Amino acid sequence: MNSIGSAYRISIFGSSHGPFIGASAEGCPAGERISETAIQIELDRRAPGKSAVATSRKERDKVEIISGLLNGKATGAPIVGLIANRDCDSSAYDALRRVPRPGHADYPAIVKYDGHNDHRGGGQFSGRMTAGLVFAGAVARQVLERRKVRVLAETVQIGNIKLDKDIPFSAAEKLVRASPVGCADRKTADLMKDEIVNAHEEKDSVGGVVRCTIIGVPVGVGEPFFGSIESLMSAVMFSIPGVKGVEFGSGFGSAAMRGSESNDPFVVKRGRVATKTNNCGGILGGIATGMPIQFRVAFKPTSSIATPQMSVDIEEKKPVELVVKGRHDPCIVPRAVPVVENSAAAVMLDEMIQGGFL
Amino acid sequence: MNSIGSAYRISIFGSSHGPFIGASAEGCPAGERISETAIQIELDRRAPGKSAVATSRKERDKVEIISGLLNGKATGAPIVGLIANRDCDSSAYDALRRVPRPGHADYPAIVKYDGHNDHRGGGQFSGRMTAGLVFAGAVARQVLERRKVRVLAETVQIGNIKLDKDIPFSAAEKLVRASPVGCADRKTADLMKDEIVNAHEEKDSVGGVVRCTIIGVPVGVGEPFFGSIESLMSAVMFSIPGVKGVEFGSGFGSAAMRGSESNDPFVVKRGRVATKTNNCGGILGGIATGMPIQFRVAFKPTSSIATPQMSVDIEEKKPVELVVKGRHDPCIVPRAVPVVENSAAAVMLDEMIQGGFL
Amino acid sequence: MNSIGSAYRISIFGSSHGPFIGASAEGCPAGERISETAIQIELDRRAPGKSAVATSRKERDKVEIISGLLNGKATGAPIVGLIANRDCDSSAYDALRRVPRPGHADYPAIVKYDGHNDHRGGGQFSGRMTAGLVFAGAVARQVLERRKVRVLAETVQIGNIKLDKDIPFSAAEKLVRASPVGCADRKTADLMKDEIVNAHEEKDSVGGVVRCTIIGVPVGVGEPFFGSIESLMSAVMFSIPGVKGVEFGSGFGSAAMRGSESNDPFVVKRGRVATKTNNCGGILGGIATGMPIQFRVAFKPTSSIATPQMSVDIEEKKPVELVVKGRHDPCIVPRAVPVVENSAAAVMLDEMIQGGFL
Amino acid sequence: MNSIGSAYRISIFGSSHGPFIGASAEGCPAGERISETAIQIELDRRAPGKSAVATSRKERDKVEIISGLLNGKATGAPIVGLIANRDCDSSAYDALRRVPRPGHADYPAIVKYDGHNDHRGGGQFSGRMTAGLVFAGAVARQVLERRKVRVLAETVQIGNIKLDKDIPFSAAEKLVRASPVGCADRKTADLMKDEIVNAHEEKDSVGGVVRCTIIGVPVGVGEPFFGSIESLMSAVMFSIPGVKGVEFGSGFGSAAMRGSESNDPFVVKRGRVATKTNNCGGILGGIATGMPIQFRVAFKPTSSIATPQMSVDIEEKKPVELVVKGRHDPCIVPRAVPVVENSAAAVMLDEMIQGGFL
Repeated sequence: MNSIGSAYRISIFGSSHGPFIGASAEGCPAGERISETAIQIELDRRAPGKSAVATSRKERDKVEIISGLLNGKATGAPIVGLIANRDCDSSAYDALRRVPRPGHADYPAIVKYDGHNDHRGGGQFSGRMTAGLVFAGAVARQVLERRKVRVLAETVQIGNIKLDKDIPFSAAEKLVRASPVGCADRKTADLMKDEIVNAHEEKDSVGGVVRCTIIGVPVGVGEPFFGSIESLMSAVMFSIPGVKGVEFGSGFGSAAMRGSESNDPFVVKRGRVATKTNNCGGILGGIATGMPIQFRVAFKPTSSIATPQMSVDIEEKKPVELVVKGRHDPCIVPRAVPVVENSAAAVMLDEMIQGGFL
Repeated sequence: MNSIGSAYRISIFGSSHGPFIGASAEGCPAGERISETAIQIELDRRAPGKSAVATSRKERDKVEIISGLLNGKATGAPIVGLIANRDCDSSAYDALRRVPRPGHADYPAIVKYDGHNDHRGGGQFSGRMTAGLVFAGAVARQVLERRKVRVLAETVQIGNIKLDKDIPFSAAEKLVRASPVGCADRKTADLMKDEIVNAHEEKDSVGGVVRCTIIGVPVGVGEPFFGSIESLMSAVMFSIPGVKGVEFGSGFGSAAMRGSESNDPFVVKRGRVATKTNNCGGILGGIATGMPIQFRVAFKPTSSIATPQMSVDIEEKKPVELVVKGRHDPCIVPRAVPVVENSAAAVMLDEMIQGGFL
Repeated sequence: MNSIGSAYRISIFGSSHGPFIGASAEGCPAGERISETAIQIELDRRAPGKSAVATSRKERDKVEIISGLLNGKATGAPIVGLIANRDCDSSAYDALRRVPRPGHADYPAIVKYDGHNDHRGGGQFSGRMTAGLVFAGAVARQVLERRKVRVLAETVQIGNIKLDKDIPFSAAEKLVRASPVGCADRKTADLMKDEIVNAHEEKDSVGGVVRCTIIGVPVGVGEPFFGSIESLMSAVMFSIPGVKGVEFGSGFGSAAMRGSESNDPFVVKRGRVATKTNNCGGILGGIATGMPIQFRVAFKPTSSIATPQMSVDIEEKKPVELVVKGRHDPCIVPRAVPVVENSAAAVMLDEMIQGGFL
Repeated sequence: MNSIGSAYRISIFGSSHGPFIGASAEGCPAGERISETAIQIELDRRAPGKSAVATSRKERDKVEIISGLLNGKATGAPIVGLIANRDCDSSAYDALRRVPRPGHADYPAIVKYDGHNDHRGGGQFSGRMTAGLVFAGAVARQVLERRKVRVLAETVQIGNIKLDKDIPFSAAEKLVRASPVGCADRKTADLMKDEIVNAHEEKDSVGGVVRCTIIGVPVGVGEPFFGSIESLMSAVMFSIPGVKGVEFGSGFGSAAMRGSESNDPFVVKRGRVATKTNNCGGILGGIATGMPIQFRVAFKPTSSIATPQMSVDIEEKKPVELVVKGRHDPCIVPRAVPVVENSAAAVMLDEMIQGGFL
C-alpha cells in the first residue's frame, strides 16, 4: 500500500531501478510558502554516496516539482515531486530470482507476486522509496515550522555505542545536521562512525536507534484510539525498511516501572499546565499533552552484507552459499535520520489538520 | 477515530459509563461458522472482577449479537455486538473536570474537547472500549483457526519479573488461559502475581510486556510499505490504552546486532523454505515469511493508583494533591493478554483477505 | 460497505429483523448542542405506519443514544444511536430463499453470500437501514443550521404527477413537513396522493423524484475530482435503496443545451458575487459557488407489489409465479424525503469540516 | 481529492500546464499481462487535436510507464504512468485571476484557495486530468477482458440529436471507435457531428449523453449500501469535469413507472437465471445481477465558448463582459467516451477484487 494519511495524504511511487521515483502530498493548505530549496536540502541529507559510512551508489536525487506550487506557494493541488534514478546497476540482481538474500524481502515477495515482482534494487521494497517520504515530510515541516512546531531526529545508538547525554533541541538541530552519523555529540559520533567503519571492514553491517523529538505541538492534537498519535506515527515508521521497533516516552522501560514512578505529575510552569517528567512521551490517550513528543525507532543492521551467507535455491530447494553484490550502506541509520524526521513531520501535519489546528 | 481496517473493518463504539459499548466487524466471509460461545469466552477472559489481580468493577460483559449471524453462520453483513454496562459508579469522576489524573487522558481531552468530553470512567478513552476489539478479534480468530492460523498472546514481563524460557505453542496456549496473569510458566506466573499484589498493597501499580505469536500465516501475507504487517499491527496495538512500545522479532535488540547475526539464513526444513533463526519476527519487507510472526507490546503501569499524586487545578492553575478513587487494576497486563491476542487476529484476517488468501 | 465519510463518518449497522438497527456518527465537534428531540422528529418523519400511503408495519423508531452526548452537547466521541425493531414478522420471508422477488436484492444476495444472507425483511438491504442515515444526518443538520446552512428535500414527482411551481425555501420547509407525500403544493400533493392510492388499489406501486436544496453553503466547500460535492453526495444517494438516478442543477437537461444557455453568468447581487441562473446546481468544479446546491434523486417504484409476478425457482431453474407477501409502501418516495434531506446534511457537514469551514 | 478506490486504487496527479500529468493504479494482480500499446490506444482516443470536432491543442499524450510493469507483466507494485504536457499556452489565462469564466471552476477555486490556485488551463480542474483516469482504466480493462468482462461507452445524445436504435455490443464496439463522435450509428453520428460543427460556428458549445454498458460481470459483484456499484461508479463519473447527471437502467424514467412495469421478471435463459427486461441496469441492492450493467452520464456543454459572456471583476465587484480565449472543444462528449469507458473499467475491477472475484 503506497498511500497513507487522511487530511495530509502521502503517496509514494516508482521503484529503485525504473526511470523515476516520486511522491505526492495532498492537503497542504493553499497559500503556504513552500521552498523547493528547503525540500532539496532534506533530500540531500538522505541521498546516497556522500560519505565513507554510506553506499557508493551515486544519485543526485534532484527533485522536479510537477504540480502543486506556483510562485513559491502551495496552490491547494497535490504537491508532486519526481526524482530521476540515474545510477542503476541492475546486473547484480539477476541471481536473486532463485536465491533470496537473507534479511531482504526477496523471498516473501517472490512467493507473493509469483515471481513477477521487480527484483532489481529491491524494486518497490527499496530503501530508495523513502525519498518520497522525505519529500512529503519536507513540505509538511515547512508548514509546521511556520506554526512553531519543530521536528528533530538524531542517532542515539549504533551497535553498542549509545548516546548518554541530553543536548538541548536547538543546539542538537545544528550538530545533528553537521554530523556524518547524525549524532549531536561529537565524541559519541566518532565512536559510532568507528563502529560503522569496523562493521564495513569486516564485510558486515550494524544496526541502531533513531530518536525523534517534536516540540511545539499544541495540547489536543491527535485522536482517540485508531487515530492516536502513536498509531499513526508507528504505522509510518514501520513502513520504513529495516525498522523493527517503535516506542514512545519510556517505552519498553515502562514495563519495569511502578505507576507512581511512570505517571508524570502535572505542574504549572510559567503559567502553563505541564508535566514534571515526560515518561509518556508527550502523549496521553493518543493525544498531545503539550510536552515534547518523543519516540525511538529501532533499525536492524543493513541486510546486504559482503560476507557469504546461507540461503537456498527456492526452486531446487537446495542450500546455496550466497555472496550479495551491489553497493550498500554498512549502516542505514545515518541516512534514516532525515527519513524519520521528515516523515514524522508529515504525520504530525496530518494530525494537526484533522484536529482543526491549522 | 473509532474505525480501522480495509477488508476486515472494525468499529468500536460506546463509552465506559453509557448504557452499552459495542463493536462492528465488517468483512467476515458469508457462510463462516461463528460460535457466539467462543466469542463470549474471549470476552470473559478480558472481563473485570474475576481475580485478586484485577479491578473489583463487576461486569458480566455478556454480548448480544444484533446482526451478521444467522443459524450460527456469518450472513455477509457486518457482525455487530452489544455489551451492556451495568456497574457504573460515576461518583468518583466528578472531581476530574478540573484536576486531571497523572498518566490519564483527562488533561489533553479536556483541552481538545473544550471540557465537553465525557469524563466518567475515562469516557471514550476507557480501557473498557477494548472489549470491542476483543469482540471483533474473536470473530476473526475463528475464521483464521479454520485455516490453521493460530494466535497466542502471553505475559512475558510484569515489573522486573521476566519469563526466561520458551514453552511450545500448543502447551503455552492452555497454560496461558489457565494462568491468572497470563503466563505459561507456573513459577514465573507466581512471581508475577506477587509483583502485582505487592504493587497493589503499596497502593501502586506495575507495567509489563505481552508477547504475541501467530503461527500458520502463509508466505506472502502483508503489503509493502504502509500496508506492512508491522504498520497495520502496530497501529492497532498502539490504540490499546497503556501501550508505549511495539517491537517485532529482535526489535530494539536488533540495534546492537551485526547483520551477519541479525539476518536469518534461509534453510530447507521438511521440504519447505524456512529460516534458521527468526530475528525478523516472521516478516520481511512487511510481508510474512511463513515463520511465526512474533512481536512484543510494552504496557505502562496502570495510571490510576491510590497513592496521592501531584496535579493541578487547571482553571486556577494551582498545584493540587490528588487521590484517585474508583476501582482499578493494579496491573493491566493480565487483562490485556486477550486484547492483544484477539486484536492481532483481526489485523491478520484483514491482511489475509486483502491479499486474497481467503 | 456500511461506513462512509472522511471528517464526518457515518456507520450504519443492524438488519431489518434483528433486535436493533443503529448508526454511529463520528466527527461532530465537541460542545455542539444536539437535541435528541430534533433527531427523533426526523426519525418520526421516516417511520412507517403513519398514513394511508405507507406500509402498515408499526415501528416507533424511538432512538436511544448510547454515547457521544452529555448534558445535551456533543462530547467529541462518536454519537451512537440504537433503534429497536419491534414489529418483525419474518414468516412472510421463508419462501424467498429459492424464489427471488423481482426488483429486490434477493437474487444477487443469495448468489453473493452463497445462501447465507439474512433474507428476513430484506436483511441488510432493507430500506429500514436508512433510519441510520436519518439519525446521522439529523445530528449533522443541527450543526449546519447553527451555521445558517439549511437543507430541504421535497417530492417533485410521483408517477406522472409533477410539481410545476417553485415555492420559496422557508415556506416550502413547513409545507413539506405538513404534507403526507412531502410536496409543498397542496393541489399537486393531492394528485400525488391519489396516484399512490390508485397504485395501491391496483396492487401495484409507483416511483417518483425527490429534489433537494441546500442553502447557505459557503463558496469553496467541496474538493476537486473524487472529493467533489457531486461525487460524495451521489455516493450516499445511490446507497439509498430504490434510487436509480441523481442529477445536479439542469442535469440531464444540460445535454440538450448550448453553452451560452447553460453557463450561469456571474453577477453582483447585494454586493456579492452570484450567478444569474443556477444551471450548475450551485457547484462548479465540484465546489460550492455560494448559490443554492440543488439536485434531484429518482426513485423506482417499490419492488414489493401484491400482483403476481414471474420469477424462477433458482435451484430447480424453473419458472414460478410469485405473490409477494409482507407489508410494503405502495410508494417509497414520501418516506424517502427525510432520508434524502438528512443524508444530504451529513454529506455537507463532511465536506464543510474537511474544507476547514467549521 | 485525487485518489479513489479500495482494492484497485487510482491516484491522478499533475496539472494542465505543469511539465507532466500522470496517474498511479495500485492493486493490479502480479503477473497480469498488460500491454502498453493497449493503454496508449485508449489515451489516443482521448487525446486532443485529432478532428474538426475537438480542440486544436496538440498533445501526443504519449505515456511513459515508470513502475509496475516488467517484461510486459504487472509486478504487483503500483503501475504509474507519466504523460508530458507539451503544448501549454498559458498566455490566455492571465486575465482569469479576477474575472471568472462562467461555467468554470475559476470562481469557487479562487475563493477556496484564496487566489493561490494554479489557474493556467484550469489547473487541477482541467479536463486534461482525465487522461489519468483513462490510464488507470486502460490497465483495468485488460484485466477485465481476460475474464470476459467488457466495457463499452457510446455517445447517445449530442444536443437534441439522440440515438434511437440499439446496436449489438460487439458491432457497436468497433463502430464507436471508428466514429469521430463516438456513436455507433453512422447516420445519427453525422447529425451529431453537424450539431457540434453548428455550435462551433456559432461560437457556442453543446452538451450530450454517454451511455456505458458492461457485460460479463458475474452475479454478486458489488457491496451493499455505500459500496454499491451505483455509489462507486457515480462517485467516479461525477468527478469527470462537466458531468451533471448519472442514471442506471431506466433511471429518471423509473419515476413515472409502476412497479409491475419496472420490476424485471426473472426467467431462465439457456439454463441460467436472467431477467426478461433490464430496467434495473443490471444492479439490484447495489449488486450485479449478471445482466449487462448499464448507465447514462449527462455532460453539460463545454463551458469555454467564444461568445462574449457576462461575468464580474471579483475584486472591484463590477460587471465585465468576458471573451474566453484559448483552445477548446465545442463539445466534450466525443472525447469523454473513452474517459467514461475506461474509468468504468477501473471501478468494476475495484468491485471485483473487493468481492473476491479475481
